[in-house]
Amino acid sequence: MPTETTTPTETTTLTSTDPRTGARVPTDLTATTAEQADVVVRAADAAFAAASSHDRLWRAGLLDALADALDAHRDELVAAADRETGLGTTRLEGEVGRSSFQFRLFAEAVREGGYLEATIDRGGPTPLGPAPEIRRMLVPVGTVAVFGSSNFPFAFSVAGGDTASALAGGNAVVLKAHSSHLETSARSYAALAEAAAAYGAPDGLIGIVYGTEAGRVLVAHPLIQAVGFTGSLNGGRALMDVIDQRPRPIPFYGELSSLNPLVITPGAAAVRGEAIADGLYGSFTLGSGQFCTKPGLAFVPTGADGDAVVARIAAKAGEAGASVLLNGRIATSFDEIRDRLIATGSVEVLAQGVADAGAGFTAAPTVLSTTADTLTADVAEEAFGPLLVIVRYDDDAQVVRALDVVPDSLTATVHSEASETDAVAALVREFAPRVGRIVFDGYPTGLRVSWAQHHGGPWPATNSQHSSVGVSAVRRFLRPLAYQDAPEVLLPPELRDDHTDIPRRIDGRLQLG
Amino acid sequence: MPTETTTPTETTTLTSTDPRTGARVPTDLTATTAEQADVVVRAADAAFAAASSHDRLWRAGLLDALADALDAHRDELVAAADRETGLGTTRLEGEVGRSSFQFRLFAEAVREGGYLEATIDRGGPTPLGPAPEIRRMLVPVGTVAVFGSSNFPFAFSVAGGDTASALAGGNAVVLKAHSSHLETSARSYAALAEAAAAYGAPDGLIGIVYGTEAGRVLVAHPLIQAVGFTGSLNGGRALMDVIDQRPRPIPFYGELSSLNPLVITPGAAAVRGEAIADGLYGSFTLGSGQFCTKPGLAFVPTGADGDAVVARIAAKAGEAGASVLLNGRIATSFDEIRDRLIATGSVEVLAQGVADAGAGFTAAPTVLSTTADTLTADVAEEAFGPLLVIVRYDDDAQVVRALDVVPDSLTATVHSEASETDAVAALVREFAPRVGRIVFDGYPTGLRVSWAQHHGGPWPATNSQHSSVGVSAVRRFLRPLAYQDAPEVLLPPELRDDHTDIPRRIDGRLQLG
Repeated sequence: MPTETTTPTETTTLTSTDPRTGARVPTDLTATTAEQADVVVRAADAAFAAASSHDRLWRAGLLDALADALDAHRDELVAAADRETGLGTTRLEGEVGRSSFQFRLFAEAVREGGYLEATIDRGGPTPLGPAPEIRRMLVPVGTVAVFGSSNFPFAFSVAGGDTASALAGGNAVVLKAHSSHLETSARSYAALAEAAAAYGAPDGLIGIVYGTEAGRVLVAHPLIQAVGFTGSLNGGRALMDVIDQRPRPIPFYGELSSLNPLVITPGAAAVRGEAIADGLYGSFTLGSGQFCTKPGLAFVPTGADGDAVVARIAAKAGEAGASVLLNGRIATSFDEIRDRLIATGSVEVLAQGVADAGAGFTAAPTVLSTTADTLTADVAEEAFGPLLVIVRYDDDAQVVRALDVVPDSLTATVHSEASETDAVAALVREFAPRVGRIVFDGYPTGLRVSWAQHHGGPWPATNSQHSSVGVSAVRRFLRPLAYQDAPEVLLPPELRDDHTDIPRRIDGRLQLG
Repeated sequence: MPTETTTPTETTTLTSTDPRTGARVPTDLTATTAEQADVVVRAADAAFAAASSHDRLWRAGLLDALADALDAHRDELVAAADRETGLGTTRLEGEVGRSSFQFRLFAEAVREGGYLEATIDRGGPTPLGPAPEIRRMLVPVGTVAVFGSSNFPFAFSVAGGDTASALAGGNAVVLKAHSSHLETSARSYAALAEAAAAYGAPDGLIGIVYGTEAGRVLVAHPLIQAVGFTGSLNGGRALMDVIDQRPRPIPFYGELSSLNPLVITPGAAAVRGEAIADGLYGSFTLGSGQFCTKPGLAFVPTGADGDAVVARIAAKAGEAGASVLLNGRIATSFDEIRDRLIATGSVEVLAQGVADAGAGFTAAPTVLSTTADTLTADVAEEAFGPLLVIVRYDDDAQVVRALDVVPDSLTATVHSEASETDAVAALVREFAPRVGRIVFDGYPTGLRVSWAQHHGGPWPATNSQHSSVGVSAVRRFLRPLAYQDAPEVLLPPELRDDHTDIPRRIDGRLQLG
């Protein structure tokens, strides 16, 4: 690959932007050339092979060491991220904690071993005649490309869940740093790489590249076996097009776009409308509305109780000032989408804050309103930022009909009272095929990282049946491998007769470890 | 959709061909029009919704009823299939038995419930603060399109594993009958549909379409949520292109092309060369070599022991007559690929039988030979039919180097002696990333249907990390759905506190049912 290119390689120095001021400062980072990216991928692949000689517990120890490194570098990382993202130190400290927690949770899962799905069918007579012995477990796919997101500089970036889950599965990882927080990415990477080296991991097991072109090189590279991506629908589509052109397709796990509808029932509006208005306002403006789980569309009943909810949200939005966005692209896109929604003429503007003057990137909370019967697809669009579309409805049938124009999402939320169970059950039946998580009497933001969590959903939320958050996220970077009549000594330890300390299914019966 | 097309619908009567004679007889089947296919898909989707009110045990009963129906119609089905495939009644009777066994195995798995991956994290304090309760399980994707294969008129067709696993998951199925055995498909479908109706399943839960164009309509249809396909690489690529054009991508589970390399070590050649020669000959000629698991490439050591193995295989092939192939396309393709391999000039022809004269479709066993150091990609190509390429090697390093030009496969096989464990371990390390199943001292054909089985592999064997055979095949047609703080009454039964008879993971600890 290096010898095939004839383009002279220019060194492009990358800059880091402070979104609060728009000030750009040069970094000592340069855009990774195609040749350099190839070297990084090959090193990762070699490291993957070298690390394969280590057992599961070694890997769990590595994950713990990476968690410790994140905690140890917390202040430095938070300072860099605050400068590059404007998200504030409280949020960012929490996010580093969440990231190290993720590594430790995967370490726990790796030690427990159930994720391997170890399954043994002994040989012998069967209803179809004599059969060989089959033993199967999940094994790593190899080297994985991980694209950091803009909105989580830690938990969905270099030190994020894709990295942790890919490493937990026994893979090597090559990261594509997000252009919006290059310094944070470089410092996160340095912390992880240093800890991995100190732990004795093979050089290159975690690699990194910078720049859009290097990202494309990764996705097209024959040694990359899977891609983890959290970002925009357009960005994801562009990478999927690259994958479609590969001679050998690979899985693309994209977490792309989500509107996250929320329904407030008449009962809920009557009993606790004020609290819901406050909670919903907090949720759609959290982190300047820059969450993939942000509730972007809220169905509110017509009538006085619903009016009060809407008025309270609009008032809070009207009083709020502008808050900083992650980068100029998001700020421009937010303005465009907000203006486009308003230009449809089918929404009423209940609150429209004004972005700060000046060179920074900001947006102010915006609340639009329409009715269920007039809701159209051009209003049911994700606006990344603090924007909420309120949809007033008279009865549940209107909500159900309106859902036809709402894109499938990561989540749906229902606020209701116990007396409304039948109606809520009908709503849940509507939402179930359309989302990956249904939230009751809460808010979709503030995603719990745990064993049961599922962060995924039908297209365009994601393009897969897998989760990018929680323990099951590791499944994306594993593949099954079966052994037929293998001599015991040639089996992976987890498939040998004496390895009884992990959950395994033997002759169809699940056994605890 | 029906009103949008302006093409006049012509009725195309489909014909069924006897591969033994080439005789074409009209059927009473017609190519399904786009309008008719749309009606079938919509009916399936409505039936899916209606069937969702039934519980898991109802579905297990349906699978058992379908199994009983296949057994009850065995003789009629076998007669039709023998006429259309030339596979012979013994093989076909076994295949019906395998198909009904598959339905019953999935019924067993559905009753056991572990496939749901039910997971519960109770709410409460966590290291990251208070957290909501999350409950997750796998739910059906909806309506699935299943494309029957040419080479398994039952086990990978209308009554095959894709149908059984999709129904087991709670989905509706629309089948695309393979053109090579239309009568068999229609009769299989009638048996299944009649049994489903008698069991009380909603009309349309299992649908069927005929003709290539109807297949494309299925894959493009907005209500189809996933595709199961067993067939050629070209056929799979064509459908993947259709999917790439969909506004909303869906998973395509293709089982496409596999060369299935087999290695005979010097020790094995010395100790039991004769038995291996017989076994390998039987495996690559089984069913006229029309298995995706056919060993198409065999590494045989140089020297007298290897010579004896090769001579025995070549002699058996030379004595064999022609056997019938499934259809004219396969016969033409077999001749083309065989001639192309020979035309490379890099293989020696050890045996080349001659197809029967006459209008039927036949091929005779063909054995070609080359050396590991001269093996090139244009010789390492799957020929669907009774063709084996023998690759002579001096040492294992040659085998490993030669694997660079061998496409990834469903399986790899190693015949060795216990004294060679170190060398075999090195070979296994080479094969592990390249295949989905490693067979020891046996043959890849004769796939066991069981809990541990994995029938998949890296591209071009398949394009996914899933299996199309065995209990785990159901995973392809399921997706996770999480509930956050849901009232108990709104949860699926399997996620309620009192549903303790299936395996579940609660607060990270796996519990048996």
